[in-house]
Amino acid sequence: MKRLTFSVNTGKRTAFIDIGSIVEEALRQSSCDSGIVCIFTPHTTAALTINENADPDVLHDLDWKINSLIPNRERQYKHCEGNSDSHLKSSLFSPSLTLIFENKKCLLGTWQGIYLCEFDGPRTRKIHIKIIEDHSDQEHAHENP
Amino acid sequence: MKRLTFSVNTGKRTAFIDIGSIVEEALRQSSCDSGIVCIFTPHTTAALTINENADPDVLHDLDWKINSLIPNRERQYKHCEGNSDSHLKSSLFSPSLTLIFENKKCLLGTWQGIYLCEFDGPRTRKIHIKIIEDHSDQEHAHENP
Amino acid sequence: MKRLTFSVNTGKRTAFIDIGSIVEEALRQSSCDSGIVCIFTPHTTAALTINENADPDVLHDLDWKINSLIPNRERQYKHCEGNSDSHLKSSLFSPSLTLIFENKKCLLGTWQGIYLCEFDGPRTRKIHIKIIEDHSDQEHAHENP
Repeated sequence: MKRLTFSVNTGKRTAFIDIGSIVEEALRQSSCDSGIVCIFTPHTTAALTINENADPDVLHDLDWKINSLIPNRERQYKHCEGNSDSHLKSSLFSPSLTLIFENKKCLLGTWQGIYLCEFDGPRTRKIHIKIIEDHSDQEHAHENP
Repeated sequence: MKRLTFSVNTGKRTAFIDIGSIVEEALRQSSCDSGIVCIFTPHTTAALTINENADPDVLHDLDWKINSLIPNRERQYKHCEGNSDSHLKSSLFSPSLTLIFENKKCLLGTWQGIYLCEFDGPRTRKIHIKIIEDHSDQEHAHENP
Repeated sequence: MKRLTFSVNTGKRTAFIDIGSIVEEALRQSSCDSGIVCIFTPHTTAALTINENADPDVLHDLDWKINSLIPNRERQYKHCEGNSDSHLKSSLFSPSLTLIFENKKCLLGTWQGIYLCEFDGPRTRKIHIKIIEDHSDQEHAHENP
């Protein structure tokens, strides 16, 4: 299947936005039952991550602590756009995330959600999703019809 | 091949546990010779990583330094379970890891081992392993029998 | 297709080296049009990342800030080789990177480049590249000739 692309509007400079419904939608549109799904955000000041889906205080604490470790302003930064912190956070969290799926659903733990990490918003961010099917089951079916 | 799931008991609050034998076992059970293997831990306070397999002092230093940067207690944390540090470490190390394998063995460097990172133990942690075979070699065989 | 391996010489202790042309070369040598590409560096003091390809000040700031957070020397490090900082940086940036490709080109944003992160150079570093083709399009062609 062709890669799918979705857009997400982020409302603040830094935020974790639940994109689970986007990944579910991509899997629903696909003809594949099981395999892996590669999620990628084509930006250098955003990223993707997996974390707690229940208590929003966890996302608050992630946001507070990462900004405390890597603050927006540092005397030593040379990049003139004032978002060097966002670039480093993007690399540490990573813009690429690979997940397993089965029966058209991501194999996640009870407390895991999928998040777009906005580190230099508000902006409109793209998310590419590519599904790679596991063909081995079908092959067995071929061998033993 | 269906995804395989393994369990690992961790003995301390923070630890790096070698899971190389688990990944090897999954590859042994598979009918695939080469491809990629997606390893995933379905927890928000654990992660997976690759690092030094020889000198245990490296793992000691990783553990000491990450806990020094992201200590367990901070006045500003709001999450009531007291493990906000563990959640951030999970996102920074990532619960998802994709590796190349050939001849049923992970393509690793001499000094590389595969580790489950426990950031809020001791607990029992699950590890899912999904193998995606590289079919291109077989196809060539089909075309040129 | 067999996995390809490339070598990169790094000139300093810490550096971000653009490896986009290496990944392009691997895709050119492949017979695959679209799918995912797994890039892996088999070292415990190097990593791979995606970041800004235009203003070199961004890479300067990444380098300065990560070394400020995780300096080379700390009294508490036990590992005798003096590169414990490099090991931690390797795990945080990750030696494994999975990207989507289409029409033999990586699906990257306008400002994204692919980098080898050297954290304990200068050295010669290896980069393994494995391409997994998306077979679903061909299959549709089979079903509807």
